[in-house]
Amino acid sequence: MSDPNSTASVVIALDVMGGDYGPESVLPGAAMALKRFPGLKFLLFGDQSRISPYLDKYPALAAASVVHHTDKMVRNDEKPSAALRSGKGSSMRLALEAVQRGEAAAAVSAGNTGALMAMAKIILKTLPGIHRPAIASVFPTITGNDTVMLDLGANVLVDAENLVQFAVLGAVFARAQGGKSVPSVGLLNVGTEQTKGPDHVRNAASILDHVQFSGRYHGFVEGTDITAGTVDVVVTDGYAGNIALKTAEGVGKLSSHYFRQALTSDPLSLLGGLLAFFGLRRLKKKVDPRLYNGGVFLGLNGLCVKSHGGCDALAFSSAVALAVKLARQGYIDQVVRDINHLMSQESFLTQENL
Amino acid sequence: MSDPNSTASVVIALDVMGGDYGPESVLPGAAMALKRFPGLKFLLFGDQSRISPYLDKYPALAAASVVHHTDKMVRNDEKPSAALRSGKGSSMRLALEAVQRGEAAAAVSAGNTGALMAMAKIILKTLPGIHRPAIASVFPTITGNDTVMLDLGANVLVDAENLVQFAVLGAVFARAQGGKSVPSVGLLNVGTEQTKGPDHVRNAASILDHVQFSGRYHGFVEGTDITAGTVDVVVTDGYAGNIALKTAEGVGKLSSHYFRQALTSDPLSLLGGLLAFFGLRRLKKKVDPRLYNGGVFLGLNGLCVKSHGGCDALAFSSAVALAVKLARQGYIDQVVRDINHLMSQESFLTQENL
Repeated sequence: MSDPNSTASVVIALDVMGGDYGPESVLPGAAMALKRFPGLKFLLFGDQSRISPYLDKYPALAAASVVHHTDKMVRNDEKPSAALRSGKGSSMRLALEAVQRGEAAAAVSAGNTGALMAMAKIILKTLPGIHRPAIASVFPTITGNDTVMLDLGANVLVDAENLVQFAVLGAVFARAQGGKSVPSVGLLNVGTEQTKGPDHVRNAASILDHVQFSGRYHGFVEGTDITAGTVDVVVTDGYAGNIALKTAEGVGKLSSHYFRQALTSDPLSLLGGLLAFFGLRRLKKKVDPRLYNGGVFLGLNGLCVKSHGGCDALAFSSAVALAVKLARQGYIDQVVRDINHLMSQESFLTQENL
Repeated sequence: MSDPNSTASVVIALDVMGGDYGPESVLPGAAMALKRFPGLKFLLFGDQSRISPYLDKYPALAAASVVHHTDKMVRNDEKPSAALRSGKGSSMRLALEAVQRGEAAAAVSAGNTGALMAMAKIILKTLPGIHRPAIASVFPTITGNDTVMLDLGANVLVDAENLVQFAVLGAVFARAQGGKSVPSVGLLNVGTEQTKGPDHVRNAASILDHVQFSGRYHGFVEGTDITAGTVDVVVTDGYAGNIALKTAEGVGKLSSHYFRQALTSDPLSLLGGLLAFFGLRRLKKKVDPRLYNGGVFLGLNGLCVKSHGGCDALAFSSAVALAVKLARQGYIDQVVRDINHLMSQESFLTQENL
């Protein structure tokens, strides 16, 4: 649909007030993304008086942006149900409405996750044929290639059909985001033998064994495979996905803690750590979690990217970059085609009532 | 029952033929454990001709051991069902039978996990009142205290009552293994709010809120809490537990890979890495996964510890140490008492049919 090498036509709607720092990280982050993708346009939703100083500071951003003032915003501690009731006219909701009306290709928000998901479902709605949206994110692996994993927590309970749809959503994502032509897709399980795992996972496997879709079904994968880069896409339910995501985050922190401790444990190690400064800095740049910031809500009729609430400008710019990549590749149109193709296949239809 | 400071009376049955290296890691590992716990006794099940050379080499081990010859063993690639049919008289089965007859306090095997669990369930049987056994292991945390997590994969599907029993099994484990008088117990979930998570987890929480047991119920914990050391015991089902365990293993490998890369990425960093040699070696000693080797099957009428199949002597000695600690603290007797106490409570009985 759109020219994948151009961002001239891409408009992104930003919830400027979302996240722990609001405009302070969102607007410098948008300015960074603009440098990376010249021609990009922004719709900025938030408090004009807090936005203006940043537009004075970043004239290129000012030239690329249209500000829509609102003094309403969704609080971080607000319950999704409360945000739905009272969130009309909030910066979060206005950004989503701009996507729904086709004025922006994607909305990016660092605000309240539950409220954002609830609003996105109601405003953007799920795509025809899709039963559940999913949250996807990109992870580094030992091979140097990235892996996409979904669902990271949108749905605690899913059935086999949902998992098969997640496989399609993830495969199109890996193609749009990572440029993989036929992404390999694995189902996360407790072992790789066919007899292992809960019903919904085994039933999804038997459907994926028979249907044609934009990816290639690899089979079951285990937790170790996520970071081993065994497949391009790891499909799981939101229960296991969220626990895996947060366990990985915890082990990452533990490793850094140990390593810092080792390099400060005696004067010689301290000197060694100083000498290794450049190597360690390169490492830090490479594995910087800010570069992997951004959980994308997939399966909705419009793109919405959730940035980490505590993000700084660099992290927010990564979330915007993810939105831009998916938007300029026409992610939604591809998903619609692929889901239609999936649903037309007899092997999907006959297995559906498993 | 037994004197917790003495190992004089503790007898451990070893499946000498189990694991990738059999006697080559099992027997030097047993010799290491013997140094750490003088007075320990072993029953060695395996091929006499392969055992003898090691007993010549380790006279203290020879003095502490009784060899039971068998030339039958369970293969690593054997299906549990096949191992059950044809495994009579195998080194694995004989070790478990020694525990069942009360001749040994625990069996330790590095053999086929599925076969070991299947045989252990049939030979040792579950304790009265316990519906499902669980696999528990010990993990390092950022606080320096260890955390116990279970179930790591014995049961993919469990109900709320199973999770409550796992909480008791885990609390008694943390007391016996880590010396914690009233261990804190968390339920692994996708968030800490009461409304989050699948039914079996939320229902287990509402039971744990009301029953008295040997631990203190903390509430829900998330994946990040496992390595943060938020609680002494993390309780989950075998599906999420196995995925968390293996995700953690994968991220650990990825981190080591990155650090190695950083410290060899340029000559100065290489020199830095060399200077930090002692600090890094201390780190390696501290986070050595071999020190955390050993998954204990809990809930059976007898102790059985599964060592990693690829273990070396040091790793195998850690698995033996775990068995010794639990055995000399009278783990089984404590569990029987605590499960009886749990089941006698009205709040458990009334919630049972949730």
